[in-house]
Amino acid sequence: MNMNIDLNNDTIAALATSPSEGAVAIIRVSGKEAFHISDKIFRGKIKLSEAKPFTIHYGDIYNDEKKVDDVLVSIFKSPNSYTGEDVVEINSHGSFFIIKSILELLNDLGVRNAEPGEFTRRAFLNGKIDLVQAEAVADLISARTEVSMRGARNQLDGLLSAKVKYLRESLLNSSSLLELELDFSEEDVEFISSVAVKKKIDEVVNEIDQLLSSYSFGKVVREGVNVALVGIPNVGKSSLLNYILKESRAIVSEIPGTTRDIIREEVSIDGVLFRITDTAGIRLTEDTIEKEGVLRSREAVKNSDIVIFVNDIFSGVSEELFGELKNIVSRETIITVMNKTDLDTSYKRDGVLNISAKDGTGIPLLFAIMKEIVFGGKVFSEKSALVTNSRHVSSLKKAKEFLLMANNSIDAGMTGEFIAVDLRNAESALGEIIGEVTSDDILNNIFSKFCIGK
Amino acid sequence: MNMNIDLNNDTIAALATSPSEGAVAIIRVSGKEAFHISDKIFRGKIKLSEAKPFTIHYGDIYNDEKKVDDVLVSIFKSPNSYTGEDVVEINSHGSFFIIKSILELLNDLGVRNAEPGEFTRRAFLNGKIDLVQAEAVADLISARTEVSMRGARNQLDGLLSAKVKYLRESLLNSSSLLELELDFSEEDVEFISSVAVKKKIDEVVNEIDQLLSSYSFGKVVREGVNVALVGIPNVGKSSLLNYILKESRAIVSEIPGTTRDIIREEVSIDGVLFRITDTAGIRLTEDTIEKEGVLRSREAVKNSDIVIFVNDIFSGVSEELFGELKNIVSRETIITVMNKTDLDTSYKRDGVLNISAKDGTGIPLLFAIMKEIVFGGKVFSEKSALVTNSRHVSSLKKAKEFLLMANNSIDAGMTGEFIAVDLRNAESALGEIIGEVTSDDILNNIFSKFCIGK
Repeated sequence: MNMNIDLNNDTIAALATSPSEGAVAIIRVSGKEAFHISDKIFRGKIKLSEAKPFTIHYGDIYNDEKKVDDVLVSIFKSPNSYTGEDVVEINSHGSFFIIKSILELLNDLGVRNAEPGEFTRRAFLNGKIDLVQAEAVADLISARTEVSMRGARNQLDGLLSAKVKYLRESLLNSSSLLELELDFSEEDVEFISSVAVKKKIDEVVNEIDQLLSSYSFGKVVREGVNVALVGIPNVGKSSLLNYILKESRAIVSEIPGTTRDIIREEVSIDGVLFRITDTAGIRLTEDTIEKEGVLRSREAVKNSDIVIFVNDIFSGVSEELFGELKNIVSRETIITVMNKTDLDTSYKRDGVLNISAKDGTGIPLLFAIMKEIVFGGKVFSEKSALVTNSRHVSSLKKAKEFLLMANNSIDAGMTGEFIAVDLRNAESALGEIIGEVTSDDILNNIFSKFCIGK
Repeated sequence: MNMNIDLNNDTIAALATSPSEGAVAIIRVSGKEAFHISDKIFRGKIKLSEAKPFTIHYGDIYNDEKKVDDVLVSIFKSPNSYTGEDVVEINSHGSFFIIKSILELLNDLGVRNAEPGEFTRRAFLNGKIDLVQAEAVADLISARTEVSMRGARNQLDGLLSAKVKYLRESLLNSSSLLELELDFSEEDVEFISSVAVKKKIDEVVNEIDQLLSSYSFGKVVREGVNVALVGIPNVGKSSLLNYILKESRAIVSEIPGTTRDIIREEVSIDGVLFRITDTAGIRLTEDTIEKEGVLRSREAVKNSDIVIFVNDIFSGVSEELFGELKNIVSRETIITVMNKTDLDTSYKRDGVLNISAKDGTGIPLLFAIMKEIVFGGKVFSEKSALVTNSRHVSSLKKAKEFLLMANNSIDAGMTGEFIAVDLRNAESALGEIIGEVTSDDILNNIFSKFCIGK
C-alpha cells in the first residue's frame, strides 16, 4: 500500500526549532544510522551509540579537526522516540551558520534532509500515532488561541480516534458475521439477523451524524471565525475595529492591509480566534470605477461567518447596503449595529444593536451575539470527540452513504453478500480517518502542509 | 561590586529557541526553584525534583486540570548546567500559544521572565564562563559566515581569555613584589629590580601590541567587510553586483534597498562576510537637487573598508569621480575596475583591473585583491588569540597606557609605590576584559545586546 517503505530505511535530519536566529536550536536526526552517524561528528565523554536512552550528553561537534560548536545531545532509542526510530537531538547554538554547518556535515555522512512533516509521517507509519493525531500535531503547532489549542489537544489525545475506531469495530463485527454466513451459504444458517444489522447501522449513522454536527463548531475551533465589517463611509467601522482590538486585549497578529482597501486583524475573544476584515466602506455592487475594491469587499463578505453591518445614528440603517448584503450572505449571520450612540444618549432604535465605538456601549453584547452565532449555545468539551477537519468530514459522509446503501439493500431483501460489501466500504471510509486505510496521495497531501522539522 | 546579587536568587524562564512558529520550542527555567516549580505543572512518571541530572522525561504540562501540552523535560543540576544553577528545559510543541501558556503558568508560580542575555549573565556571575566567552556566545549566535563563526568559537574556547589572564598574572607577580617592598620599606630591601620590572612591562606591552594589531583582522572576522560600489551611471555597477552574488553562491541575506537609492547585499566569499552597497550612480558631491542621494552615497563610501570604483571601456576612468573618492577614503582601499572588456577583447588598460561582469573576466582577481586589502596576508588561525571586540580594544589600550606610565615612573627613578599603582591599574584594565574587574554598567551594556532566552 505504501510507496515510502524503502525511503523509511534511510536516516533523516532537519532543524526542529523555528528557522530563525535564536539562543538554542535543535537538529533532529532519526533513523537506523542516527547514533552511528552522530558519533562520527560528536566528541564527548562517551559514544552516543553506547549512551542510555533519555540521557543528555555534553560535547563538541567537529568537522574534521575544526570545532563547529559545543552542543548538548539527547538520546532516544527505538521504539521510545517521537518517530519510533532511533533519534538523536542535537541542541546547538541557534546560529544560522552553525545549523547549516551541522546539517551539511550530516548530509556528507549520508543523512538526508527531512521533508516537511517527515518525522511525524514516520511516527504514523511506525504506529506511534494515528492519522488524526498526526494532523492534530500540525494544528497544535499553528494554534493561536486557547480554544484552537484545546481543539488540537482533544484530537492529539485521541478522542476522535477512539470514537472512530469504536464505530469501525462495531461495523466490523456485523460484516464479519455476514461474511461468515457466505462460507456456510449451502447450509442456510444465519449468524446475525438483518434486524440486528439494521439496528447496528442506525446506531453508527446516528453517531456519525453527531460527529458531523460538531463540525461547524470544530471548524471554528480549528480555523477561527471570519468577520466582515461592512458599512457606508464614516459610520465608524475602523473606530469599531480599534475598540474591539483594544477590548479583546489579545491581538493575535496584526496583518497590515493585505490589499489597498482591506484591513484584516486577528483577535482572540474569550479564547476564540476572530479574523476581522474592515471593508473600509467599499461598495458591494459594481457601479463605479472601483471594480477591484468592490470585488474584494464582496469576497470578504462572502467568506465571512459573521457580518457586522455598521450604521450610525446620523445616517440611519442603510437599506440599500442591507439589501446588497442579504443577496450575498444569510440573514442570520448579519449583526446590524447602530454606532455613535454616545453622541445622542436619548437615541434608541429597535431591531438593531445600539453601540458606541467610543465609550464601548453595547460591545460586550456584540461579542456575546458573535459567539452565539458561531456556537449556537454549544460549549467546548474536553471530553467529547470533535470534528475539526474537512478531510474527516468527507470520510464520515462517505461512510454514512455506504451505510445508507446497506440499509437500502437490507430493505430490498438483498443477500448478506451485498450488505457486507457496503459495510466493508463504510469501514474503509472510517479507516481513512485514522489512517488504518490510506494511500500515499492522502499522506503526501497531509504531510506536505507540515513545517520542516516536525 | 554587583547589584544583581539579590535578583539572582529568583528563578527565571524564557523561550530559548527563536520566537517564531516551529516544530519544537524550548522553554528554559533556571534558579533555585526550577525543579520545585516545574513539578507543580508537570505530570510524568517521576517528580522532576527526584530526577537524575542529564536525563529526559516525558510527561504533560497541566494548567489545573487542563492539559496544555505533552512535553519532554531535560534536567540539569547545579553547578552542571549552562547557568550553573538548577535548570529545567521544557521541550514543547512550537506553537506560539502553547509557549505563551507555559510561560504564564510559570509566572503565576513566581518565575520571572528572563531579561535578554540573563541566562548567560548568570553563567558569568556563577563563574561558568568569563566575560569574553559570554560576549562570544552572542557573536556565535549571530555568526553568518564560517570565518565569523570560527572567530567567535576561538573566543568561546578561551584563547583570548587565556592570553589576557596570563598577561595579568605576569604583572600581578611584579606588583606584588613591589608592594611587599613597601611593607619592609624601613629595611630598604629589594624583592625585584627595576630592570626586571621594566623587562616584564616591555614584554606585556609587546604582547598587547600584538593583540591590538589583530583587531583590524578580528573586526573583519566579527563584523564583515563593508564594500561600496561607486561609478558614473551605466558602467555596469549592478551587473557587477549581480555577478558577485552569483559567483559567491552563498548569499547571506538579501536586504531590499534600505533606501530608495541604495542597494545592499551580503555575500560570503571564501567564508568572509562582504556587505556590498551599490550607490547606484549617485554623485558624491552636492551639485543638484539630489541632496539626499548624495549624502547617502557619501555615507556608504565613508563607512566602507573597500571601494570598488567601476568604470567601463567606453567612458574610461572618470577622473572627476576618482578625485572625489580620494577626498573621502584612503587611496589604498580603492580598487579601480574597468568593466565591459567582453565587448572589446583587444582592450587592455594598465593600472586598472580589467573585468567583465558579463563573462566573469577578472572577478577571481577582484576577490583576491579585496581579501588582500582586508587581511594584508594574515590568515585566520584557530590557535592564536584574536581581538574582535572594540570593548576589548579600549581596555587593552588603557592597560598599555598605564604600563607606559609605569615605565616612565621607573625611568624617573620614582619609588616602587608609584610604579605598583600603575601596574595595579593596568591589571584592572586587563581584568575588565575577562570580567574579573567589572561594573554593573559594563554588564548591563553587554547583556542588553543579547537575545531573550540566551
